[in-house]
Amino acid sequence: MPQLLVRGISPSQLVPISTALIEELAAICQCGTDNFTIDCLSTTSVFGGEQVPTYPFIEVGWFERGQAIQDSFAAALARHVISIGVPEVEIAFRMYQESAYYINGRSCT
Amino acid sequence: MPQLLVRGISPSQLVPISTALIEELAAICQCGTDNFTIDCLSTTSVFGGEQVPTYPFIEVGWFERGQAIQDSFAAALARHVISIGVPEVEIAFRMYQESAYYINGRSCT
Amino acid sequence: MPQLLVRGISPSQLVPISTALIEELAAICQCGTDNFTIDCLSTTSVFGGEQVPTYPFIEVGWFERGQAIQDSFAAALARHVISIGVPEVEIAFRMYQESAYYINGRSCT
Repeated sequence: MPQLLVRGISPSQLVPISTALIEELAAICQCGTDNFTIDCLSTTSVFGGEQVPTYPFIEVGWFERGQAIQDSFAAALARHVISIGVPEVEIAFRMYQESAYYINGRSCT
Repeated sequence: MPQLLVRGISPSQLVPISTALIEELAAICQCGTDNFTIDCLSTTSVFGGEQVPTYPFIEVGWFERGQAIQDSFAAALARHVISIGVPEVEIAFRMYQESAYYINGRSCT
Repeated sequence: MPQLLVRGISPSQLVPISTALIEELAAICQCGTDNFTIDCLSTTSVFGGEQVPTYPFIEVGWFERGQAIQDSFAAALARHVISIGVPEVEIAFRMYQESAYYINGRSCT
């Protein structure tokens, strides 16, 4: 963690920005870059009676870090995504509870 | 938003009902149809030692709208899905916090 | 439910353990095995300027069952996954609210 779950932006679009993006996000979080994952979900979207491109959306799964860090994280993430030509992107944070998170079966609490 | 994240129902099954479905859901929510997205996730399911069809499940991601609207939304969504021959479907709502939701890097609060 | 949403572990890896895994999890939950679903999400991951294998992660969606059952569930799940050669796995539980969960359009409350 943090985990970025991406819809509507392709892996090939993210490859060129991935290093600089994660370095900036790790600096904001004051954690190592190797805590981050970027997973692009394979999706097919439907609207108005036809298949359409998936709207760009990123869900960030992490432990609560406070509003200020979250605001900086969202701003940096959006800036990098928009820099590759994605016209708009929505980002939502989802908080994991440490009491409900396990590494190799052991609780994080 | 609202976002419909679909598992176990194919895009081609949803295409024919997508217009009427979204119009009815938008009427229930009293918002525009263009706020809605329907994303079908690509999944492979496993049970009892073999690959099996994915159980039909829809997660609705939105801001809290109250129990009455949520009940109507779920009933309409299930009715449309069952109308295309899906025998059963489970639907779960997931509430986003406005303080944790960003459009182009700007908070919704 | 419970629903296992899997990233970074392939369906073919899970097929051989699926029966024993679900039987053990059902015993822990004291519910029938046919309440369980295992859905593998199709993902492509990116890190450090290239595509990389997806980090093994399982999200468990269920109704709250208490810390002790959750701890046992996570330990059993991790043990089965590690038994097939997955070196590490993270597991997070996500609680559904019964008031926000519907079967065929009818609330679970």
